[in-house]
Amino acid sequence: MATSPHLEWLPDGDLLSVPGWRGAGVRSGVKESGAPDLALFQADGPRPAAAVFTRNEIPAACVDLGRETLRRRAELRTLCVNSGNANAMTGARGRADARRIAELVEQHAGGPALAVSTGVIGVPLPMEKVERGIEAAAGALTSPCHELAEAILTTDTCRKTCAVEVELTPSDGPPQRFRVGGMAKGSGMIHPNMATMLAFVATDAPVEAPLLDALLRRATDVSFHEISVDGDTSTNDTVVLLGGPEGDDPIGEGDPRLPGLEAAVTAVMQRLARAIVLDGEGRSRLMELRVTGAADGESARRVAESVACSSLVKTALAGGDPNWGRIVAAAANAGVPLDGDRLSLELCGHRVFEAGAPTDYDQAAVAAGFAAEEVLAVLDLGQGNASARRWTTDLTTEYVRLNAEYTT
Amino acid sequence: MATSPHLEWLPDGDLLSVPGWRGAGVRSGVKESGAPDLALFQADGPRPAAAVFTRNEIPAACVDLGRETLRRRAELRTLCVNSGNANAMTGARGRADARRIAELVEQHAGGPALAVSTGVIGVPLPMEKVERGIEAAAGALTSPCHELAEAILTTDTCRKTCAVEVELTPSDGPPQRFRVGGMAKGSGMIHPNMATMLAFVATDAPVEAPLLDALLRRATDVSFHEISVDGDTSTNDTVVLLGGPEGDDPIGEGDPRLPGLEAAVTAVMQRLARAIVLDGEGRSRLMELRVTGAADGESARRVAESVACSSLVKTALAGGDPNWGRIVAAAANAGVPLDGDRLSLELCGHRVFEAGAPTDYDQAAVAAGFAAEEVLAVLDLGQGNASARRWTTDLTTEYVRLNAEYTT
Repeated sequence: MATSPHLEWLPDGDLLSVPGWRGAGVRSGVKESGAPDLALFQADGPRPAAAVFTRNEIPAACVDLGRETLRRRAELRTLCVNSGNANAMTGARGRADARRIAELVEQHAGGPALAVSTGVIGVPLPMEKVERGIEAAAGALTSPCHELAEAILTTDTCRKTCAVEVELTPSDGPPQRFRVGGMAKGSGMIHPNMATMLAFVATDAPVEAPLLDALLRRATDVSFHEISVDGDTSTNDTVVLLGGPEGDDPIGEGDPRLPGLEAAVTAVMQRLARAIVLDGEGRSRLMELRVTGAADGESARRVAESVACSSLVKTALAGGDPNWGRIVAAAANAGVPLDGDRLSLELCGHRVFEAGAPTDYDQAAVAAGFAAEEVLAVLDLGQGNASARRWTTDLTTEYVRLNAEYTT
Repeated sequence: MATSPHLEWLPDGDLLSVPGWRGAGVRSGVKESGAPDLALFQADGPRPAAAVFTRNEIPAACVDLGRETLRRRAELRTLCVNSGNANAMTGARGRADARRIAELVEQHAGGPALAVSTGVIGVPLPMEKVERGIEAAAGALTSPCHELAEAILTTDTCRKTCAVEVELTPSDGPPQRFRVGGMAKGSGMIHPNMATMLAFVATDAPVEAPLLDALLRRATDVSFHEISVDGDTSTNDTVVLLGGPEGDDPIGEGDPRLPGLEAAVTAVMQRLARAIVLDGEGRSRLMELRVTGAADGESARRVAESVACSSLVKTALAGGDPNWGRIVAAAANAGVPLDGDRLSLELCGHRVFEAGAPTDYDQAAVAAGFAAEEVLAVLDLGQGNASARRWTTDLTTEYVRLNAEYTT
């Protein structure tokens, strides 16, 4: 068995902690607040790239274009994010604008380029401002750059970045040190309806392109796919993983360096995902839900999703009320066959339900555990060996206020 | 073409408006408030009966028993509802208690009997109180009885009843007058986790038993299956339809009286369903959502469900904000293939989105329409001829308060 690699977290690390990357965050004027709203970041040469996009059936123009770009060639050098306007549900004009942005980025900063938008939907992009922003950013690339991770935010209340260093030992040669760094945005939705989640993760470790894609998908499954704030999938969600220059000794399947690299990429993506949930709109508590003993992965995920999205579970969490019946009822509402007599539930380390009925549990201890900021629920379906996990926020009056009480 | 029958609504009508039925609502002491909490109602003889039960995978003991009872023989004479305790997630003891209640009802009031529970879950029933309640109710059957519909309520703020009279003309004979009356409960959830919806509808029109079942399912599809308060399906949901004594001229398939009877049953069930949504917890507005132009019924229902359950749509509704992008994004999040360019959305009679982009709509008019208590949204998918409808409440701070801020 391989021992798990030692990961060294870098203080204030972000994507630009990875050698070869520079960035800029500028004020293009799209955000009325005047905050940084255009991020440009660039490697010193083309990098193998893989991406996961939203499953929403009516994605923003940038998502369709991004898919097309990476299908043509899994390689990127420059990435651009404009925040404040998602260029979603903007029809033919939106598609033309998305293409134009990518062209402008290639023209001013060099390609291959990927451009992503986040913010208001249904409103045409103010292209003049975006163009001036791209020009300004292309002329201001530095490393480090604090404004980079700020310029991709919308309703987020804080920057979300991290970076890690890991030592990987090839089959023949001395240990090598690599970095994995990333930044993300997401917290819920903004006026009038975005719930966009964006994440960009880079490493200087050389990885073969097909493996990069597999690595991204595996790491996404146990990070960004495990979080839920309000159950809506936005039109613009995008996660990109950028590898190091392939060089003459790239990491492929079976390479002894792969487990360590995968651990580092996964750790960075999990930390970014967790930062998004922690910054979830109106959040006062969060719940880690583990569904175990499922017949198969799909069943585990459906049950976890049903519990994590239940308004009744999320309001109980807001109230700090260890209302286990709501968790079991929501699980039983997932459309997955369940046997109540074989199912068990643990809240904050205490078995509260088994054999179809509540146990004689220590109510004071469970109440105290559930009053904490972070709550653990483990639901065992008693059917098999598959499992799933979700991090979910509570549903608070503040969440409703943020999403209901603004003027259009 | 048959003209639609004239339906005459009876003032203060309820299930007991149907000839042959008596009822009683008593205080058994299960509800700590001392409100009526045990309802017993009885026909003057056995009646053909059909029922639709919750799809929740861990149903309450009364649901399993009710299914068994009606599978054995589709006939009922006495029905009993105890409120304040759902006898759900109570294991082997709960199953024994459910059987015992049905036996007590048969013993004190006569069978065949169906007993239904609603209220707190995970707490054993105080059987002595229930038994005394059944005895008292069996000795107090009258018609009319105002407390009957009150005794089935939990967090509801009002009784939900109605009755209609309809004239049906057989193929050979003079017109006959029949009644359809019913009562329902449901508004959201109660401490600690019920979202139970119960409805009982009776008619004195003679109907063959298999037809009664088909009639119930068709009417449920366009009434109780079209409403959503918080997206959770409770462990105890039950809808029962009771026919008149079969006699020597029962209504079967092809009978000219059937369309009129179906219209009356559907009207009563729709009015009861609407009463549940109107009484939805914390509700300030409601939305009627029609999904049209779907490729098939299942796609229409999935899209409707995704929109009706979206926290972002429901908070926009709470804010009175005509945030059409949230509706389109939620529709596109249903897992149903959609083409944004063929989809269109009308809010309050104004086309706001088509061909993938917002129209140049009258924003003031749409804002005014959306500020009303009731809002109509019509989403056409542009793919076929199937449709679905949902009535949904808004998600308000009051809903969160009701469900989060109580003590266990």
